[in-house]
Amino acid sequence: MPHIKVSENLAGIVSLFDFSPETAEPLNAIAEVLLRGHEGYSDRDREIVATYVSYLNECQFCMNTHAAMVKYLNEGDEAIVDAVKEDFESAPITEKLKAFLNIAGKVQQDARRVLTKDVERAKNAGATDKEIHDTVLIAAAFCMYNKYVDGLATVEWPEGKDKYDERAKLTAEGSYFHQKFS
Amino acid sequence: MPHIKVSENLAGIVSLFDFSPETAEPLNAIAEVLLRGHEGYSDRDREIVATYVSYLNECQFCMNTHAAMVKYLNEGDEAIVDAVKEDFESAPITEKLKAFLNIAGKVQQDARRVLTKDVERAKNAGATDKEIHDTVLIAAAFCMYNKYVDGLATVEWPEGKDKYDERAKLTAEGSYFHQKFS
Repeated sequence: MPHIKVSENLAGIVSLFDFSPETAEPLNAIAEVLLRGHEGYSDRDREIVATYVSYLNECQFCMNTHAAMVKYLNEGDEAIVDAVKEDFESAPITEKLKAFLNIAGKVQQDARRVLTKDVERAKNAGATDKEIHDTVLIAAAFCMYNKYVDGLATVEWPEGKDKYDERAKLTAEGSYFHQKFS
Repeated sequence: MPHIKVSENLAGIVSLFDFSPETAEPLNAIAEVLLRGHEGYSDRDREIVATYVSYLNECQFCMNTHAAMVKYLNEGDEAIVDAVKEDFESAPITEKLKAFLNIAGKVQQDARRVLTKDVERAKNAGATDKEIHDTVLIAAAFCMYNKYVDGLATVEWPEGKDKYDERAKLTAEGSYFHQKFS
């Protein structure tokens, strides 16, 4: 049961967006700018980083939300999420994304552990400074979302997996801002 | 040395705001809404929570930045910061703020450790649901800022303590949005 009185019809961060609209706005703006509208370092790959960090933090709501985004952006195939969770180094993804996941995992644990060699690995795989910046910020931001969701003991969608898929479609075809209205 | 090419004239998160203005906007908006313009659960007390979390994460830049804010808002007296860092339970602060620091420390460590009894302690000290919400989000947001600043290995202001004090005055008399312009 959540630690504060939120709507019983809403789950996870969505119940918190509804509880506190003034903070919902900038929180959604961060997700929107970091996770949507990107080519090269694609939205799918950015959602994989978000899902992986949520997995490391064991935040079920965020992990399910962003795994559903990966699935939607990956033409319905979600096997890639399981492969990354099991061992991203052997997952069917680019070396660049592996380098980003290595950095993201260190940011989740203790950001000071990101070393020059970790950044060099990403640069050797073709990463730009902006992409490295975005990776660190995505990982840091998801530590925030995860702690926000779990620190207030919010619940998951009772409808289960279908609900996450349904909402992923709304986000992918609309924007992250829809989160505060439903 | 920072992991990405940022201006040599800027430090910490300010160098990152300059590097990536599109993310600076919502990141500053979160600090502005959470840390400024509040009575009751005052700006000073919110800055103490921000400083304490940055201290736990050992993020020097953020700790110095927000300790300077506490000092400015506390009429120049910064002894309160040292007292909180040493042992907040015996610091000269309200029981409500102690309860908030207890929650913030758990959010920093593993947010799932925030228990009903921790929230009850805050409520017994007069905390509202919104104040508990804000405490969890301040703690979570500072984990993000701290990881962002340290994950990219940004530097401190070379001018030292005076520079933090100078900037705290600008923020307190203006807003957090000044951060991206200087």
